[in-house]
Amino acid sequence: MKFVSFEWNGIEQYGVIDEQTNDILNLSSVVENKENFSLPLTLIEGIKQGDSFVAEVDRALRKLEKEKETFLVKSDSITWLSPIPHPTKNIMCVGKNYRDHAIEMGSEADIPEHVMVFTKAPTAVTGHLSPIDAHSEITNELDYEGELAVVIGVGGKNIKRENALQHVFGYTILNDITARDLQDRHKQFFIGKSLDTSCPIGPWIVHHSQINNANQLNITTKVNNEIRQNSNTKHFIFPIEEIISTLSKGMTLEPGDIIATGTPAGVGKGFKPPIFLKKDDVIEISIEGIGTLTNKVQ
Amino acid sequence: MKFVSFEWNGIEQYGVIDEQTNDILNLSSVVENKENFSLPLTLIEGIKQGDSFVAEVDRALRKLEKEKETFLVKSDSITWLSPIPHPTKNIMCVGKNYRDHAIEMGSEADIPEHVMVFTKAPTAVTGHLSPIDAHSEITNELDYEGELAVVIGVGGKNIKRENALQHVFGYTILNDITARDLQDRHKQFFIGKSLDTSCPIGPWIVHHSQINNANQLNITTKVNNEIRQNSNTKHFIFPIEEIISTLSKGMTLEPGDIIATGTPAGVGKGFKPPIFLKKDDVIEISIEGIGTLTNKVQ
Repeated sequence: MKFVSFEWNGIEQYGVIDEQTNDILNLSSVVENKENFSLPLTLIEGIKQGDSFVAEVDRALRKLEKEKETFLVKSDSITWLSPIPHPTKNIMCVGKNYRDHAIEMGSEADIPEHVMVFTKAPTAVTGHLSPIDAHSEITNELDYEGELAVVIGVGGKNIKRENALQHVFGYTILNDITARDLQDRHKQFFIGKSLDTSCPIGPWIVHHSQINNANQLNITTKVNNEIRQNSNTKHFIFPIEEIISTLSKGMTLEPGDIIATGTPAGVGKGFKPPIFLKKDDVIEISIEGIGTLTNKVQ
Repeated sequence: MKFVSFEWNGIEQYGVIDEQTNDILNLSSVVENKENFSLPLTLIEGIKQGDSFVAEVDRALRKLEKEKETFLVKSDSITWLSPIPHPTKNIMCVGKNYRDHAIEMGSEADIPEHVMVFTKAPTAVTGHLSPIDAHSEITNELDYEGELAVVIGVGGKNIKRENALQHVFGYTILNDITARDLQDRHKQFFIGKSLDTSCPIGPWIVHHSQINNANQLNITTKVNNEIRQNSNTKHFIFPIEEIISTLSKGMTLEPGDIIATGTPAGVGKGFKPPIFLKKDDVIEISIEGIGTLTNKVQ
């Protein structure tokens, strides 16, 4: 099941992808027009409800099968939003979680021994097909980072590795756009990682039940159709279970928290000489079992 | 005017300190019982309204002067909350903003040339007089950092230095509790700075109109009544105007954003040998013109 948030007729709504038509089954419209389903008003509420929400969506899809035309919205008629359009805390991002990326950013010495986490401001979040601001008056070194992102379902603290995946609602794709000059200048990564529109997320959240092993998914990033990153999450230094377990040590994770799992080699800064993003560049990040997140720099 | 959030009879409410009695004038109760004032339901809504909110509170205080007993709540009968109990993004914190602290954490080489910003999770936020969890199973090096915090009123992007203070709603006190071992181990500061209860804020927000120059305020931290930090915000490497201007370059600041301005020398790690926090330690941070934030480790 692929959960989406979108704007249609000027209103924020949510839904699921109809697998037959690839259009969107508008659950916000179901909530409004059908009283016989107990669906929440927003996707984040559903994520808080967890399994019972997914079961109710499943029931709705089956019951509405014959009249689903009424609730379908053409995917080319909407504005895609981040599946969680308004995160209520910063996006948590694991730095240097692939050996080859750690090395391209410096040397073997940069391979971390412990999970390294920085954050991106929620104001940076944007959706699939939305423009990425070049911020050319502020940075000359805008860079992409294709990443698998985990969306937390059931919250918790001191989560054990063996229970960690029970806290995952689903998976999505995140482009950790980074101003390398600001990242270097300001030492801690927050400023260089938090420019407005520097955190495209989407197009949707795939429910965890549809991903067999998130620690083994192909991930590729293309810029203007040229493959720049091509790896597999099996190369994670810290697998998802360890990231969740480490983050939750003494810190409560909450439903809807977004954790980006790091990027493989092939970022612009890794080339010699570096190839940074410029106006009109199109970045496409594809992850096996999820889909493709596409954004253009403007 | 000192704005507070508190829990009373199990309900989150907000108010202002009554300067005559030092008790709390319960504005949530005014909202509920007096229709002739247009006050918002929550303090964060008021902060979004800005000057008109402060003017309306002022009008309410004057009009209600004769019957204010009805709305007064004894300050020893409430649970203090962070003035903004549920920040909708991470707390932004300037690292090493006093020369003497930068040096005690390393050497002259640690004095930053550019504003350095890391963040603390909103789940770490707690109020005046609330306990700080020792997290003794996770850290052996819990430390305090007394700091002036700025609360953003009017949001904005690319704010010029000369206009920066127009974006400040008010000032409060923040204890940037830090697990030094985690801070070192995980390189980027987020994990070591985000344990639950590691971000006491309060007791209140003092409206900016009552602070003549926030870049010139005495700040002291006592642990068990012993002075550990004793400085003045005039020693900021980056004054408030520059912090706001730098952060807002390409990143939208929003009403209610909290920015901690850094800590002076005298943290536990700065002593030789270091003196870390232990159970039952009482930390009191006082800032001129604001008040004292007190928390006990448990």
